[in-house]
Amino acid sequence: MAIAQTPPPPYYAVIFTSLRTSIDNHYGPTSDRMVELAQQQPGYLGHESARDGLGITVSYWESLEAIRNWKRNTEHALAQAQGRDQWYRAYKTRICYVERDYGFEADDFSD
Amino acid sequence: MAIAQTPPPPYYAVIFTSLRTSIDNHYGPTSDRMVELAQQQPGYLGHESARDGLGITVSYWESLEAIRNWKRNTEHALAQAQGRDQWYRAYKTRICYVERDYGFEADDFSD
Repeated sequence: MAIAQTPPPPYYAVIFTSLRTSIDNHYGPTSDRMVELAQQQPGYLGHESARDGLGITVSYWESLEAIRNWKRNTEHALAQAQGRDQWYRAYKTRICYVERDYGFEADDFSD
Repeated sequence: MAIAQTPPPPYYAVIFTSLRTSIDNHYGPTSDRMVELAQQQPGYLGHESARDGLGITVSYWESLEAIRNWKRNTEHALAQAQGRDQWYRAYKTRICYVERDYGFEADDFSD
């Protein structure tokens, strides 16, 4: 997984923080499918994801409308419902306006 | 690590996404110390962190001024410099205004 190559701000971010249950039931394939589907949405700019106990997924979007459309996507809505029923003990979603960003890359990428 | 218990929006988020080098050199203790120090800053609201290859740390703040003050904290500034010199191959910092949030908690927290 890489750092998302987003365009210059402003743009939007959705921070999805979650705690899993121990129920698997196709979580992995569904999660992969949601990434694939999100990438096909208009206004998708990128995403980043990590989990060690707590899971954090941040997706980046051109507009609030793009976020709304993705939330309402039928297949995604079904996955969200299954998430509440089976996969997640708890989650929090935060809708953010990214005002500014800056970064760093080491000259020598070999350690 | 838990989901941060933030107050109702609006508030601010700093999304810090990073790729580590293989250099340790007190990374763990310094990271722990930065969390301890951040928690003492005025305007700190909480933080969430996960790493599996990619690392994502999100810290939450009352205001942009609180974020600026934390960035300029002397001990934190030293850690940032060591981060660029030793610990990180690359990172990106995004400053965000959190407009809206919503969450979910399962009734039965046992799996």
